[in-house]
Amino acid sequence: MRWTAFIREGASRAFNHRPTFSNLVLLVGAASSGGLVAYADSKSDDVVDKPQGPQKKKVVVLGTGWGGTTFLRNLDSRLYDVQVISPRNYFAFTPLLPSVTCGTVEPRSVVEPIRRILEKKGGDIKFWEAECFKIDSANKKIHCRSNIGTNLDGDGEFLVDYDYLVVAVGARSNTFNTPGVVENCHFLKEVEDAQKIRRSVMDCFERASLPYLDEEERKNSLHFVVVGGGPTGVEFAAELHDFVTEDLSKLYPAIQHLVKISLVEAADHILTMFDKRITKFAEEKFVRDGINVKTGYKVVKVSKDAITMQNPATGDIAVPYGMAVWSTGIGTRPFVVEFMKQIGQGNRRVLATDEWLRVLECDGVYAVGDCATINQRRVMEDISEIFRVADKDNSGTLTVKEIQDVLDDIYVRYPQVELYLKSRQMNGIADLVRTSKGDAEKESIELNIEEFKKALSLVDSQVKNLPATAQVAAQQGQYLARCFNKMKDAEENPEGPIRIRGEGRHRFRPFRYRHLGQFAPLGGEQTAAQLPGDWISIGHSSQWLWYSVYATKQISWRTRALVISDWSRRFVFGRDSSCI
Amino acid sequence: MRWTAFIREGASRAFNHRPTFSNLVLLVGAASSGGLVAYADSKSDDVVDKPQGPQKKKVVVLGTGWGGTTFLRNLDSRLYDVQVISPRNYFAFTPLLPSVTCGTVEPRSVVEPIRRILEKKGGDIKFWEAECFKIDSANKKIHCRSNIGTNLDGDGEFLVDYDYLVVAVGARSNTFNTPGVVENCHFLKEVEDAQKIRRSVMDCFERASLPYLDEEERKNSLHFVVVGGGPTGVEFAAELHDFVTEDLSKLYPAIQHLVKISLVEAADHILTMFDKRITKFAEEKFVRDGINVKTGYKVVKVSKDAITMQNPATGDIAVPYGMAVWSTGIGTRPFVVEFMKQIGQGNRRVLATDEWLRVLECDGVYAVGDCATINQRRVMEDISEIFRVADKDNSGTLTVKEIQDVLDDIYVRYPQVELYLKSRQMNGIADLVRTSKGDAEKESIELNIEEFKKALSLVDSQVKNLPATAQVAAQQGQYLARCFNKMKDAEENPEGPIRIRGEGRHRFRPFRYRHLGQFAPLGGEQTAAQLPGDWISIGHSSQWLWYSVYATKQISWRTRALVISDWSRRFVFGRDSSCI
Repeated sequence: MRWTAFIREGASRAFNHRPTFSNLVLLVGAASSGGLVAYADSKSDDVVDKPQGPQKKKVVVLGTGWGGTTFLRNLDSRLYDVQVISPRNYFAFTPLLPSVTCGTVEPRSVVEPIRRILEKKGGDIKFWEAECFKIDSANKKIHCRSNIGTNLDGDGEFLVDYDYLVVAVGARSNTFNTPGVVENCHFLKEVEDAQKIRRSVMDCFERASLPYLDEEERKNSLHFVVVGGGPTGVEFAAELHDFVTEDLSKLYPAIQHLVKISLVEAADHILTMFDKRITKFAEEKFVRDGINVKTGYKVVKVSKDAITMQNPATGDIAVPYGMAVWSTGIGTRPFVVEFMKQIGQGNRRVLATDEWLRVLECDGVYAVGDCATINQRRVMEDISEIFRVADKDNSGTLTVKEIQDVLDDIYVRYPQVELYLKSRQMNGIADLVRTSKGDAEKESIELNIEEFKKALSLVDSQVKNLPATAQVAAQQGQYLARCFNKMKDAEENPEGPIRIRGEGRHRFRPFRYRHLGQFAPLGGEQTAAQLPGDWISIGHSSQWLWYSVYATKQISWRTRALVISDWSRRFVFGRDSSCI
Repeated sequence: MRWTAFIREGASRAFNHRPTFSNLVLLVGAASSGGLVAYADSKSDDVVDKPQGPQKKKVVVLGTGWGGTTFLRNLDSRLYDVQVISPRNYFAFTPLLPSVTCGTVEPRSVVEPIRRILEKKGGDIKFWEAECFKIDSANKKIHCRSNIGTNLDGDGEFLVDYDYLVVAVGARSNTFNTPGVVENCHFLKEVEDAQKIRRSVMDCFERASLPYLDEEERKNSLHFVVVGGGPTGVEFAAELHDFVTEDLSKLYPAIQHLVKISLVEAADHILTMFDKRITKFAEEKFVRDGINVKTGYKVVKVSKDAITMQNPATGDIAVPYGMAVWSTGIGTRPFVVEFMKQIGQGNRRVLATDEWLRVLECDGVYAVGDCATINQRRVMEDISEIFRVADKDNSGTLTVKEIQDVLDDIYVRYPQVELYLKSRQMNGIADLVRTSKGDAEKESIELNIEEFKKALSLVDSQVKNLPATAQVAAQQGQYLARCFNKMKDAEENPEGPIRIRGEGRHRFRPFRYRHLGQFAPLGGEQTAAQLPGDWISIGHSSQWLWYSVYATKQISWRTRALVISDWSRRFVFGRDSSCI
């Protein structure tokens, strides 16, 4: 072994054998170590030590994003014959994509080859760089197509069998069928998108510098429009503003005063998913920075030269622009839409799973992340069965004790009950029952079916779709891997709640999302953080929390080192403005 | 000022104010500090402190490669109205391009925005990202076209006036009209080329990993062909071999034994411009490494699937391949060919300049680097005039003393004389004269014109074209900037040699190339170095010399830090194999 190879292997061995160290060393503040890092470097502790014979079930994973990768990292690959199929042979740390657009972080610093992740994990997992274009759930086959090069014989199509299919293909950008968006706007979902945006920003500056242009033409070329006031759009606008003021203004002194950044949002405010204090701070900061925040405007058309937006007060206005980034929401990929039609979900907007992430009406298919949504069972759908199960003595009425006996299972099966109680500041179901029965003594309360229905009638209002974030996808991937690892065990010793319709218990507890907080970087080393427990933090301190958390959450020591060195480099040398 | 900005500016101030420190700190070995770093961070010491009025002459520089950038860095921009035009808004450190192909160094680490270089320099130099497509030397105008985006009104064309034009546009790859090369081969001249190669290598590996391929198809996909056994081709082959053995073999264990790298060279040996010992070592090392060195084969056709090569013994053979890199020589850019026709150089292969880098038969146009060649005046063309000038007493014969008197000027004007003497191990012109006159006593020798002609008849055999290297271009750029800086001074006090045809002295000494040595990295931390004075070094030590020199030669502290951190990262974590 050459000494360089020795150094490298020694170093990576040293790193790989200390996964928890990686979670600690960079973390600033107790808050984040408690929760925010849960989708970082953790490895499953549920690995079951039972290698199986040749009849291993075939697990096929589609996608190498947050959901797919977290699933793979946590899966005990000795239990299954695992195949991974994705058009990208790497995992991308998507929360840093806005930083990639302006060169604060380099694209290669946020990606990790999936083969390296699988190699570190050990076991024999196969990866194929190809795109699934059809799921044939009746025959448990998927149709794939490789789009690499042209030298492959034939059309590059092939079939893969599965016993279990994990769909983790993410979503695509949603244009809401606005004309001209696909042709003229940039999206910001993939690493390639971020690279194109970076190049395009520089092109606008170089174009505006050319001789023989009038002031108006230069201005138009330097008008950057961000459509969508969500976290991605806001972060990109902030990054761009920093890039312009900190770096480009020095290199393009003659035109820097012509730069204009507009943030267009159809709703009345930006960052509506955040606390109002954060929204207000962000809007005020952007106005101070000279970013043109246009709330209440809906983009209806994009042409080569102008964006047309609509506002009830002004009607249609066409604004010339140099570059536009479209970041308004997510849509379902075409082959998933096709699959949904096939399994009778044609009238839904997005692939639905049950609370165990199993695709509804489809045996052996699971879905995690942005491509799917959990169809939380409503309490009111099952209310008679719940009553029957709880009414052990078949008296036709439920006592508080009878309700308490099944309460844990109810909470697990229908998390909206607990959320509802919390939202009404109630301590337990007794409070709810008492409310419905007036002020009677709790012990003596007995509810008939109608009264029971009435007491629970509003709890389903708490059912909400999970946000389309890395956090959700990662938690789902981890959850699903755990289920796969315990599949056999749980058959004998089910650990889920009582089956309300049916016998015995569910095999697993349903997936439950734990929200660990969210960041909104606002530029100028200021970040807003909304942490669990309604904890809000805005300013430089949360910027440093952001640095710590994002460094800690990196998928490998390699990307961690690269991201930190990119940040340092930016502090010392600024961002690069070469058009490559 | 925010503290981060303060840190950054402080740091870059600290770096910028110590240019010589940069040349010292990384340098290992006395040899390199003596010569090899001459085209690194040096700034002109010829800056004349004479700002001029509004009638400054217009200097237009085409190109931001080695020649153009070195010219700009050394030019006293207060003396001229300077405009730079290039389709690339950055300078690229091209000697590291082979390292970029496999991710040993990242593309952004080898580029520096030209505007940053100009900003550091100070002065008002304008840069336009556009391509010159026509030089109109009769009217002293150039026609340019911007190819950025589509939003620019009109066709993006504009005209620029010049008083002096510096053509530093480099060369393009030469396919020698071999069919299929442009369509199917990669070149390796630009940063984009290197990025495409990197992506293509990974595509070949991913393609070969797909299911349902037979062994033959996998093999073909993993056959990498490098056409051209020059330093670039050899270094790329070596880099690729390292990438495969050090990194990819771990990630693609099932197919790594199918990889084959072929290096095809039409001549009998690779690296023919190097010493024979280096050629031999390189060929032997490549054979040991399993690289298939095919010398004596000429590629005659490239199709989508196969490369056809020719050898007198075997005739045409078609070899299937996965990826091919074409690196066999350089050709002239089309607009330069057009310009050459315009100025009566239509029958030449490449733009010719005189020894002062002035384009022949064309007022006010200069050319440096790969796009031009110096038309060294032959001694035999001027032999009668030389005789006349030297024969001060008009005696019809030259004494040794008369020759000695003009010898310095002859050496400067016709460097081939000195080279010839060196090549024959002669100590001075007296030796040459004595040889032609037999063994007579030196003092008494007198030569008539025919004897003088005979004595010098072979010296012109030493006239050779300069190699198309960064070193030559950089030295030419620096030389030309010095001439521009001293233009006025030198008019009054010419510093060049006596004019052989004409009166007085030349304004400047002609350009003289100092060869500082050349490296050939051979992979596996082994490099061959051929240094001036016939000093050969092969192995690990010269690899470290290579690291030192290349780090030192970086154009800015930013790229220096990035390149070194890339090297370190590669030692610790290996190269990245993500397809982005």
